[in-house]
Amino acid sequence: MVRDGLLVRDVGEQGLLKRLQSFCPAELVGDDGAVLTPSPGRSLVVTSDLLVDGVHFSDQTTQPEDAGWRAAAANLSDLAAMGASPLGITVGLAVLGTVPVTWVERLYQGMVDCLQLYGTAIVGGDVVRSPVTTIAITAFGEAEPTHIIRRSAARPGDAILVTGIHGASRAGLELLLHPESGQELEPGDRAALIQAHQRPNPRLDVLPLLWQVWAAEGKSQPTLPTSHFPALHLAGMDSSDGLADAIVQICTASGVGARVERSQIPLPPALVAWVGSEKALDWALYGGEDFELVLCLPLEMAQRLVNTLTGAAIVGVITAEPGIVLVDADKSHPEVPLTLERGFQHFESTFER
Amino acid sequence: MVRDGLLVRDVGEQGLLKRLQSFCPAELVGDDGAVLTPSPGRSLVVTSDLLVDGVHFSDQTTQPEDAGWRAAAANLSDLAAMGASPLGITVGLAVLGTVPVTWVERLYQGMVDCLQLYGTAIVGGDVVRSPVTTIAITAFGEAEPTHIIRRSAARPGDAILVTGIHGASRAGLELLLHPESGQELEPGDRAALIQAHQRPNPRLDVLPLLWQVWAAEGKSQPTLPTSHFPALHLAGMDSSDGLADAIVQICTASGVGARVERSQIPLPPALVAWVGSEKALDWALYGGEDFELVLCLPLEMAQRLVNTLTGAAIVGVITAEPGIVLVDADKSHPEVPLTLERGFQHFESTFER
Repeated sequence: MVRDGLLVRDVGEQGLLKRLQSFCPAELVGDDGAVLTPSPGRSLVVTSDLLVDGVHFSDQTTQPEDAGWRAAAANLSDLAAMGASPLGITVGLAVLGTVPVTWVERLYQGMVDCLQLYGTAIVGGDVVRSPVTTIAITAFGEAEPTHIIRRSAARPGDAILVTGIHGASRAGLELLLHPESGQELEPGDRAALIQAHQRPNPRLDVLPLLWQVWAAEGKSQPTLPTSHFPALHLAGMDSSDGLADAIVQICTASGVGARVERSQIPLPPALVAWVGSEKALDWALYGGEDFELVLCLPLEMAQRLVNTLTGAAIVGVITAEPGIVLVDADKSHPEVPLTLERGFQHFESTFER
Repeated sequence: MVRDGLLVRDVGEQGLLKRLQSFCPAELVGDDGAVLTPSPGRSLVVTSDLLVDGVHFSDQTTQPEDAGWRAAAANLSDLAAMGASPLGITVGLAVLGTVPVTWVERLYQGMVDCLQLYGTAIVGGDVVRSPVTTIAITAFGEAEPTHIIRRSAARPGDAILVTGIHGASRAGLELLLHPESGQELEPGDRAALIQAHQRPNPRLDVLPLLWQVWAAEGKSQPTLPTSHFPALHLAGMDSSDGLADAIVQICTASGVGARVERSQIPLPPALVAWVGSEKALDWALYGGEDFELVLCLPLEMAQRLVNTLTGAAIVGVITAEPGIVLVDADKSHPEVPLTLERGFQHFESTFER
């Protein structure tokens, strides 16, 4: 943390707010609230997150720019997981008076860097004093009412699709916590794993491809009049708390089970070479923060999406039976149940990201 | 604080979230985000607030139900100050594991009690562990694009209207901090002052009256075709940080000055009898948290609104000259400038609500 220069208490709440306004579009700030114009007929999707210093981020592993990026990315990922395009985010910052102003500015710069990449912005917020630095983000987006992706819509027979590799973020965290580890990694691979942890990409880019695949599916059923066209049959969420968590949450919400094929889960090859396939798989399932989408949809649609989306893979199938199991087509591993218990529990874990 | 029963750490994040979902409409919770349906053609208004234990609320003066009510009321007041009707709020709660679950439930009950009175609800949120209990609220509303009330729209000659009495909330805080004080108050008056602090009412009820007055104003100018009708000329904000702060903020944003007549500021008569008119006026100007609206509008409209809105008063006039002064028609007090410096500064004040 930079120790030179002004501290938050030197500039006060009003002074800090004034500086932070340079990170927001001028036409939206300075009143009691932001004013936005959603597209007519679209639903408003809202999601919010709290990040606490020492619990969700720390100076040990995270520069303020990266903490900002990750906070913004996590919220955009929640919008993507609902099928929504971002309209903006609000940022509430509770901060110690002894925090350098530059730390706060670097945090906001990281958020803006991520938001700009996805065509959106900070549109409002609040700054207050607190003994513990806390970042509260609310993101809002808009979606076609018929195109909202819910956890509860998975049906038996659906393919389970992931939009990319898993385990990279957990590997990057390991390298940041233990810089002496992973000496055998190529510099490029090492940097990519760290990047996956520090600068995750919310998969908003998946949505247009998904709607294309859906539209193609619609054209293949020309006998149905548009007004009677069934709502999109599509379930999903993001894998921010791990791939296992995402699958279990979807299955629980949908009242179904799943069979997940261990060899089909996409892992970074460098990670497998470094820690072995068992540990890499464990990090993919339970590490979290990969921010990929986990989608459940008819097999044909899933296959079309895999054909257009580099890195995507079909990893399993939704079943009518309630169990959620990791299976091995080769039968060289026993079937293992997937569970939330290994997942991220804020009040119970001793180490939390 | 109740010490018996379960603590937050006993039920964990998932357990706490499950309990808190009973405070939210069932159709809106349980996914990555809430889905709302704004009315077509309306603008979306978004406002957010952070409240920190020991800074913005404390068990000394505030039961958890009241902290919840005040947090919800403050955000609904920000919506009212923009001219917006509420669509919902999200609540992020960062909380110590040693906080009783009942404390959290009472906090949410207070929020819901306030929200229900105004026909709205908690539609989403987050719960995380933190060394300091922090409440992050984002409120969403909708407004006619032509009916948005901005701070920056005041014009010289406008009347400055307040929608009710000021100073009551600060007086209630005094009675809570020093229960031995104010023995001379009637029990009913004492209770009313404390109520003003613990259970403030956001003035969403003012909006329909305001639009009626505006519509009447429109009819009195029948020569103008509707399409050329000027956008509502109306500035305002709420008095959450004190009446002086509201007037100064509006004048600064609008590039104008103001003359405020001290005898016209509505004060609770019991407060004047208790602490004298000078201290009562000081609390009205700088105490804060009265959550009334401060509106700047043409005198004729202001007079119509005063006629329909019990408790409202015209307290001054917007001037082209930049100074903001408190004046005395009787000339028994000198003119005094109104300033932000006496107002609520989060990083500088020693006592903060």
